[in-house]
Amino acid sequence: MTRPPTSRDLARLAGVSQATVSRVLTNNPKVNPETRARVLRVLEEANYIPNALARAMKTGRTDTIGVFMTRVTSPFHAELLDEIGRVLSALGLHMILWNIEHDPEESVGKMIQQRLVDGFVLTSATYDSSLHTIAVASGTPTVLLHRGIDGLDCDQVVGDNWQGAYDAGRYLAEAGHTDIGLVTLEHTGNTSRDRDLGFRAALADAGIRIKPRNVLTVGVPHADGHAAAQKLLSAKKPPTAIYTVTDLLAFGILDGARALGVRVPGDLWVIGFDNTDLAAWESFDLTSVEQPVHAIVETGIDLLRRRIENPDRPAEIITLPCPLKIRKSTANTPWRS
Amino acid sequence: MTRPPTSRDLARLAGVSQATVSRVLTNNPKVNPETRARVLRVLEEANYIPNALARAMKTGRTDTIGVFMTRVTSPFHAELLDEIGRVLSALGLHMILWNIEHDPEESVGKMIQQRLVDGFVLTSATYDSSLHTIAVASGTPTVLLHRGIDGLDCDQVVGDNWQGAYDAGRYLAEAGHTDIGLVTLEHTGNTSRDRDLGFRAALADAGIRIKPRNVLTVGVPHADGHAAAQKLLSAKKPPTAIYTVTDLLAFGILDGARALGVRVPGDLWVIGFDNTDLAAWESFDLTSVEQPVHAIVETGIDLLRRRIENPDRPAEIITLPCPLKIRKSTANTPWRS
Repeated sequence: MTRPPTSRDLARLAGVSQATVSRVLTNNPKVNPETRARVLRVLEEANYIPNALARAMKTGRTDTIGVFMTRVTSPFHAELLDEIGRVLSALGLHMILWNIEHDPEESVGKMIQQRLVDGFVLTSATYDSSLHTIAVASGTPTVLLHRGIDGLDCDQVVGDNWQGAYDAGRYLAEAGHTDIGLVTLEHTGNTSRDRDLGFRAALADAGIRIKPRNVLTVGVPHADGHAAAQKLLSAKKPPTAIYTVTDLLAFGILDGARALGVRVPGDLWVIGFDNTDLAAWESFDLTSVEQPVHAIVETGIDLLRRRIENPDRPAEIITLPCPLKIRKSTANTPWRS
Repeated sequence: MTRPPTSRDLARLAGVSQATVSRVLTNNPKVNPETRARVLRVLEEANYIPNALARAMKTGRTDTIGVFMTRVTSPFHAELLDEIGRVLSALGLHMILWNIEHDPEESVGKMIQQRLVDGFVLTSATYDSSLHTIAVASGTPTVLLHRGIDGLDCDQVVGDNWQGAYDAGRYLAEAGHTDIGLVTLEHTGNTSRDRDLGFRAALADAGIRIKPRNVLTVGVPHADGHAAAQKLLSAKKPPTAIYTVTDLLAFGILDGARALGVRVPGDLWVIGFDNTDLAAWESFDLTSVEQPVHAIVETGIDLLRRRIENPDRPAEIITLPCPLKIRKSTANTPWRS
């Protein structure tokens, strides 16, 4: 290794004074653009700092987007991450992935201040977190995908979870079910909240009262769906249908029902939410409300790029439809009562 | 927005000459360390360039590791990614994730040259790719996890796929199976190769001949396992056991068997490889050879950090055991023949 080049070496190579090199490095607007370009080229060629850093200094951009996510092992989140990667790659952008499940919020907050990236994608905003507020306040262009926060002044692209849940409830009501189970999550974000409230609204509109003992609030893993099914199905008069707010819980419910010998859809109908790839697998064949991942990501990254170009654009909140996808965990025939 | 600070402003703030600011920015070794630290602090506080870039200039490090991966939607890869994220976060390191499935190899090669990161983690090295060679040749510290490349002079941490596959074969042979199906992948990497050859070796050692029509080479998705099962099981004398080289294919095989009404393990035993979280789900209850993700990632990131500290350390290749985890897709009783 030779010694790193000095500013004198660099000035000589660029054919400028040392003061000019210094002005370029300190973003002094007085340097004329051609000289500036020549100096930066020399700096890059001399490798006195990494190329990407030199380019970042030149353009003020890192061509990198920071993505905040939780639970990449959940099938839905893995599909969301894959789609984000696909869209960013197609645009020639790098992705820094922060799995905020593993990072204390404090250290994530610090990272946000560091301006490592040109923009933020938040996929798991929750009401009890201040990350989205910190991200927006940092001035770095930010978009919320999949999970939105009401009233937050930033671009957001979400599914119409309420309507999708309503359609699932109406579908069960119209099929003649009256004993219906709801396996739900704490309302920490808009997805769990709207997927719960939309479903209840449909039952209320159909004049169906959901029994308090048929509503279980659980955690996110498969095992929690499994336990919930076992609890609901061991009642004297078990529900004839169970709706839940994520596919992962629905898989657990199907497995819990299977363990008890309860036949689906013969004895029990099950509906999930997300329409993940796994929902179509023979083991599950799950009726599910679709979260339109592809459209959410495409639209969201487009908003983010437009915000990077024009930081003063007014914030947009875009809501995309969540259609019900019917498979064999429910039947197309009325429920025998 | 005010104008960006000039080198004159910065020099005044730091109490040094403009020439000193310039020397600091060009890494001139003549600046005394205290002065250097003071100037960099002023630069950071003035935000004349992003903090992370200033720190990168100061330390020569970005505190960021580049992770190359494919197929994050496959349950095994999602678990691997989650574990890498967990370990890097605990060390205060950022992760740039390159999903090389979406990026043409050429552009990935370019990224490697840009020195955006302190080190590379490659999780999906294949014989027909030159990425690992480019990564190692770039001089950036590199570790191969999960997939290794024989003879490549860099740190590698892999599971003992051959031995794990051998144990699966011996287990089937000892249980009395003689008609055995093998659903395998092209040998594009060491995992598919060793998981195939180890299994064949065990059958050969047990004096069992595997019929050519019982060996199917397929693609990676669940649907390919499903189709393979349907093909193998519709033969006049179908195999009584099927072993395959990934859990994802095994899930497809279980689903294909289910669609035909073939009972597992009554009519058919199934063994997968990876021991993903899903393998334990009731739907599958899959006997599987474990890929020790946690140990592979912990060990691999440790090797990478040691290489970043000491680039001249000799390369280490570490192989960790892959134990067979028996569940209900196989029985603990001898096969009735």
